[in-house]
Amino acid sequence: MSFRDRIRSCNNYDPACVVPLIAGNDRIGLLRRDNAAALQRFPDVFAVADDKVSLLAAGDAAAVSQAVEGVVDALVAEDRVPKRRNETFEVAPRWGAPPVFRLDRGAVPFFGTRAYGVHLNGYRREGDELYLWVGRRAPDKRVAPNKLDNLVAGGIGNGHGVEETLLKEGEEEAAIPTSLTKSAVPVGAVSYRMDTTLGIRDDVLFVYDLEMPADFVPKNRDGEIVGFELMPAAAVLDRVRATEDFKFNVNLVILDFALRHGVLRPDDREYLEVATGLHRPLD
Amino acid sequence: MSFRDRIRSCNNYDPACVVPLIAGNDRIGLLRRDNAAALQRFPDVFAVADDKVSLLAAGDAAAVSQAVEGVVDALVAEDRVPKRRNETFEVAPRWGAPPVFRLDRGAVPFFGTRAYGVHLNGYRREGDELYLWVGRRAPDKRVAPNKLDNLVAGGIGNGHGVEETLLKEGEEEAAIPTSLTKSAVPVGAVSYRMDTTLGIRDDVLFVYDLEMPADFVPKNRDGEIVGFELMPAAAVLDRVRATEDFKFNVNLVILDFALRHGVLRPDDREYLEVATGLHRPLD
Repeated sequence: MSFRDRIRSCNNYDPACVVPLIAGNDRIGLLRRDNAAALQRFPDVFAVADDKVSLLAAGDAAAVSQAVEGVVDALVAEDRVPKRRNETFEVAPRWGAPPVFRLDRGAVPFFGTRAYGVHLNGYRREGDELYLWVGRRAPDKRVAPNKLDNLVAGGIGNGHGVEETLLKEGEEEAAIPTSLTKSAVPVGAVSYRMDTTLGIRDDVLFVYDLEMPADFVPKNRDGEIVGFELMPAAAVLDRVRATEDFKFNVNLVILDFALRHGVLRPDDREYLEVATGLHRPLD
Repeated sequence: MSFRDRIRSCNNYDPACVVPLIAGNDRIGLLRRDNAAALQRFPDVFAVADDKVSLLAAGDAAAVSQAVEGVVDALVAEDRVPKRRNETFEVAPRWGAPPVFRLDRGAVPFFGTRAYGVHLNGYRREGDELYLWVGRRAPDKRVAPNKLDNLVAGGIGNGHGVEETLLKEGEEEAAIPTSLTKSAVPVGAVSYRMDTTLGIRDDVLFVYDLEMPADFVPKNRDGEIVGFELMPAAAVLDRVRATEDFKFNVNLVILDFALRHGVLRPDDREYLEVATGLHRPLD
């Protein structure tokens, strides 16, 4: 087992299996060919060609969202898309651009639209040793049930900012007072592109570090995490290498933490693979 | 002017202008086509084809090095390679693999063999503000004269380790006692591939951070740096964005520092471009 395995499983995307989803002159998604074919029966909304799928629905974001929602309803009925999450993500050609439409979170991988999340490394320093707070995901989570997770993590929903999402998730997931979360340091972003049973995950995770007070004990409030444990960062890193105990993308966030804090060191045989494997260029 | 410009100028490599340099089954370099053509008159050492150049010289690393050295002498005489630097770099298919041969540093871009360096961000914290020690390169440096630089930076020569190079360069370039440099934290690596007048720079820079004591003042000993200045990290970042005052690759190291320490923040319009632009995947 190796760090490389963790990086590869988040980057198993094969361009040959995918066609772009186009709106105007912009690519806004990546449709696996089987998913593209399933859109042929909605010719009012999508034009499916061999080498691309074009969004035909016109109008403002609300109008396009409504048209796509009708398609999503049908895809859910066919079991091609899991049931609605009742949380929408913005679909845009790039971060910060006005949304072309809004899409139920459950349908995001089907269309391969880029999704943004925020992950928080909650750490403690005791002498020279670093510790990480690790959560365990609830058994009823749809994605990665029972897997280990960062102290706080969440998707950035329609209309919400990065820091706003971090503050909200910090309260809900780990009962961190927002006054404390506000001192978290933004430390970059991790990116990957992954082929899943549902479609393509084209994800960008904004990463924050937060040094936790010695007397702080996280408490989950929303039922998404069943418990927390404070583990030596070196032991967490060993577990990332040796097991698949952590959620797929959390492995990458932990590798990034380990690199930035010198827990992973240049004499490790995989150092450069990790240093160059966590930041898939955006296109 | 933008961070993007700095990233792009280190990544202006065009695969169409280059052929691989092959040894056995491994790629060990990247020859621009004009440089590949210049090797045709050394048929005992290199076989030049349309789509690749193969290393023919056989034997152990010493024997191959000697054969290539003869070629380098001729290339220097023709002004295709600058005069010898009298420092050799190892040429290998990947970091940590046994070297196929050793190559004078001045000839490295001609052959496009991967080069490794180490850069040290020397910083100070005053309250909430971060400061960076910045050096100015001597006017007689062959590469990037007069440009601004990190506190310490150097290439990793044949037979030397990453930390060993850092300790040595720290003493020579900035008079940092090795006892202090030893506490530097390895924080990852920056990578880029750049087309230059001499050929391809396929570079990996190991990056370290070192918090400098308040009473420490760097002093150059080897004549490579003419002076040092302690600047607010935010001002350094503005200067990276607005000017070309820093050496090309130092811009990337500073952007990486700014990201990791929250000097560059997610509300910056170029945040994700920076976060995903500093770590060209190795191939």
